[in-house]
Amino acid sequence: MVTEKLKPASNRPDENPLDSEGLYPDPEKFLGKDYIDLNILKKLVGRSILSVDQFDKKTVLELCKFAALLETTEIAASHPLDGKIIITAFFEASTRTRLCFESAVLRLDGKIISIPTGMVTGVAKGESLSDIGEMFNAYGDLVVMRHTETNAVDEITKNLRLPLINAGNGSGEHPTQALADWFAILKWKPKLKEAQVKHKHKIHLGILGTPGSMRAVNSFLRMSLLFKSGIRKISIVSEMADPLGPELAQMLEQSGISFSLSNDINEVLSDLDVIYMNSIAFLGDSYKTLDSRYKLDRESNLKKDAVVLHPLARLDELDPTLDGTHHNLYFTQAHGAVFVRQALLIAVLNRFDRLPEKQIPLSN
Amino acid sequence: MVTEKLKPASNRPDENPLDSEGLYPDPEKFLGKDYIDLNILKKLVGRSILSVDQFDKKTVLELCKFAALLETTEIAASHPLDGKIIITAFFEASTRTRLCFESAVLRLDGKIISIPTGMVTGVAKGESLSDIGEMFNAYGDLVVMRHTETNAVDEITKNLRLPLINAGNGSGEHPTQALADWFAILKWKPKLKEAQVKHKHKIHLGILGTPGSMRAVNSFLRMSLLFKSGIRKISIVSEMADPLGPELAQMLEQSGISFSLSNDINEVLSDLDVIYMNSIAFLGDSYKTLDSRYKLDRESNLKKDAVVLHPLARLDELDPTLDGTHHNLYFTQAHGAVFVRQALLIAVLNRFDRLPEKQIPLSN
Amino acid sequence: MVTEKLKPASNRPDENPLDSEGLYPDPEKFLGKDYIDLNILKKLVGRSILSVDQFDKKTVLELCKFAALLETTEIAASHPLDGKIIITAFFEASTRTRLCFESAVLRLDGKIISIPTGMVTGVAKGESLSDIGEMFNAYGDLVVMRHTETNAVDEITKNLRLPLINAGNGSGEHPTQALADWFAILKWKPKLKEAQVKHKHKIHLGILGTPGSMRAVNSFLRMSLLFKSGIRKISIVSEMADPLGPELAQMLEQSGISFSLSNDINEVLSDLDVIYMNSIAFLGDSYKTLDSRYKLDRESNLKKDAVVLHPLARLDELDPTLDGTHHNLYFTQAHGAVFVRQALLIAVLNRFDRLPEKQIPLSN
Repeated sequence: MVTEKLKPASNRPDENPLDSEGLYPDPEKFLGKDYIDLNILKKLVGRSILSVDQFDKKTVLELCKFAALLETTEIAASHPLDGKIIITAFFEASTRTRLCFESAVLRLDGKIISIPTGMVTGVAKGESLSDIGEMFNAYGDLVVMRHTETNAVDEITKNLRLPLINAGNGSGEHPTQALADWFAILKWKPKLKEAQVKHKHKIHLGILGTPGSMRAVNSFLRMSLLFKSGIRKISIVSEMADPLGPELAQMLEQSGISFSLSNDINEVLSDLDVIYMNSIAFLGDSYKTLDSRYKLDRESNLKKDAVVLHPLARLDELDPTLDGTHHNLYFTQAHGAVFVRQALLIAVLNRFDRLPEKQIPLSN
Repeated sequence: MVTEKLKPASNRPDENPLDSEGLYPDPEKFLGKDYIDLNILKKLVGRSILSVDQFDKKTVLELCKFAALLETTEIAASHPLDGKIIITAFFEASTRTRLCFESAVLRLDGKIISIPTGMVTGVAKGESLSDIGEMFNAYGDLVVMRHTETNAVDEITKNLRLPLINAGNGSGEHPTQALADWFAILKWKPKLKEAQVKHKHKIHLGILGTPGSMRAVNSFLRMSLLFKSGIRKISIVSEMADPLGPELAQMLEQSGISFSLSNDINEVLSDLDVIYMNSIAFLGDSYKTLDSRYKLDRESNLKKDAVVLHPLARLDELDPTLDGTHHNLYFTQAHGAVFVRQALLIAVLNRFDRLPEKQIPLSN
Repeated sequence: MVTEKLKPASNRPDENPLDSEGLYPDPEKFLGKDYIDLNILKKLVGRSILSVDQFDKKTVLELCKFAALLETTEIAASHPLDGKIIITAFFEASTRTRLCFESAVLRLDGKIISIPTGMVTGVAKGESLSDIGEMFNAYGDLVVMRHTETNAVDEITKNLRLPLINAGNGSGEHPTQALADWFAILKWKPKLKEAQVKHKHKIHLGILGTPGSMRAVNSFLRMSLLFKSGIRKISIVSEMADPLGPELAQMLEQSGISFSLSNDINEVLSDLDVIYMNSIAFLGDSYKTLDSRYKLDRESNLKKDAVVLHPLARLDELDPTLDGTHHNLYFTQAHGAVFVRQALLIAVLNRFDRLPEKQIPLSN
């Protein structure tokens, strides 16, 4: 089997990430001299991205490597998504996730039609999502959907024949957020991509939140299990008696990773290498925020090299006094989300042939 | 008189309509070996499209033929709307009609500025539409407007010097929906385009809804009268005592078409060749849905070859059990709306000269 | 010092301003044989435009001359904003200002991602603007923001490293509106650009509104002080006891311009050369409209050559009977806003090198 490969090139001219507050690990260091295995990425062509469960570790790694390459390469002039229309259907309103996807699309010269602010009319409430999916077939080439209902993904895919990227379905999943999360972690500690990770490099992962009812935390935990070779322990801190639910609890047990549940962050904080926080738990149409006991600020007893991740938006659980510190990996995480989504769009829409040949030579 | 003509070319590569559920008649069969009379279409240059009453049968036919050609031709690379800005002003929010127009524009490489979700601010409520029309003169090249008020079209055109496409004004009209409706019917039964239709090919047209207060049904009925040579009878089924109002009643009588009013679908259903349904009657700012007695599903006593049209969105009057049957012409109708609108945009903006010369040769 | 210069060229083909109602002074007459001093405009490269206080008279003049040149030149084919993404973040909803900016961007071939209708979700309300600013760094190249809160500009710029154009912050400022206002005045009376203005050409400027609480009026008054050499007197007509507030009152006094406060338009109307009106005073989240005593219509005792400006939207204080008269400079003012904003976007994003060389030769 011949493996098609990409290799990294020059920095994007319009971007100076070093101005950013917080930790900004170099994507080139993560990429190293690795080539990107296009045969792995091409398995995503034409596929919908609905759940982290569709991914194996190899695919996540190649996507993150491809994202790192996009972060360090000027590719706009190649118009990779030329002629493609992406439908950003945010039936649940979102500022940053929608704009992040739309920026990713426009930088690749794709086009956008959008439902930006959810269903606002009484008439609209009676429409079925499967009918809307049927219409979308005629309007675009790929759909990015967010919805307040967990079953919205099942509904729209009844008639939709375009690839769908799930950008958050109720209390279900948010798989591209998990890709952005792990893209940040892998840039921070490239050793985690290896099949065998030495014990001293393994991380203790803390999750402040409720994987069973928070979609971003749910997807993050599922993807973390793919990287179990690099994880020493997972500690879940939540005010809920059962923050996991039966399915996640079983997955976690079967993974063989040591894990603990706690409702006091101080029991584990000083040993954590990575802290993943989220503030918002969706409960049907409404939501609740993290209990005030689970806050981090500059005075928190963080391990010297610990990094904090947060899918944002944050409320007051993550204090801005941490922004200027090297614990802040959450800004890197947010910025990297553009490139992870670009990587996914190019893969699903099979536009590998539109990448700049000179900067990104493909092996035969 | 020299007639400029277009002829059909290759299929669009990115579209596989055969995957769609329901009936999907071939646009090439409708187009046949006919050429498109550009002299007819050029009469639309620079004009606003406000009502079906502006159209004669010849213009509808040439527009539908042009739409069929666009459905079967790859023209994006010709950038027909290059440099044109279309303003999609949906003062009444709409998901599918706005996205349909925007997809039509973007596929032709036009650009869009949009009011996607109606007037949401208190301040905005005091603005006059004629002032907004004056501003639009400076912002774009063509306006597509939907509004909750029937007189909105009169208001905005006081100062607007750009062409306006009425995409639904209160309980008034929705002329491009009627074009999409008849585009579907003509693809299904191309014989209806002829001046003389044999009696055995003439259709019995059933309308479930209230033309007098439903804009889509109103426009559909008006356009149907242009095709009277192919219509055996029109049966209107509505719970209203007077579903037509005086103007439509007079038009229908003057057309010479045999017609009946009924409030029981079962009196006529088994003889209908085409059933046009709509669910929503606007009553000022609010709306009411069709009575539960007027529903169709797979068990309904439909004629063997009958087809069902619906402008969508549907509520429960049109059961999804019909989706997988050959009675379903409504998905074709919805998909074809993109091409009908493309045809209209190219005509009104006079961009016939941007069509691909090799695929679409023009006679002299 | 070598001064780089631009000179005017042919009319834009798609625009026929002469159809407009009201007064439409020729931008070429304002431009005359002047060259545009790019060294002045280049001082705007990369800068945020937050307040009129950032401008001196020279910069306003060069921007208006550049706008006049854009109004009379076909430059779309040069794609001046190619590859640039502008974020139109209207946290306070706006129809015309947003569409005006977006039209300006698209005509220059820039791209847009947008928050069109403010914050609509409960979740969104908890987000901090400084976090949103941090995200914007990764999504685009320039931000245009409107917000209901005056301090929103301070908040978002904490983390934003892209240039920001303030398109209205609460009761604060609206500097690009003031540029559009003065662009209209300068086209109407080009003599006002000179350092020495003969007494007979000096204008009596009337302001109907409350500069202290109306952002457009505030910015207009501040910019007017830059043109004091052409102003004979400023009369402020307002129902408020103190329509200026201490800062503006001090600025006005220090300017040396003769000024009066009044609460009766009829005391000054017959002597005014320019009347600037506005209808809406923001009071925190709500607003109040101008008192009914301060209305103008065709019967008002206007000086023969007086012109009326209004940032629009208007309510009933400015009667449409004036639209068809030569007093109407407000439609010119509104249309010119597109070109003023184009001039600013090209300057801030430093895309002078993308202007068409043949039409706009640069001196060395």
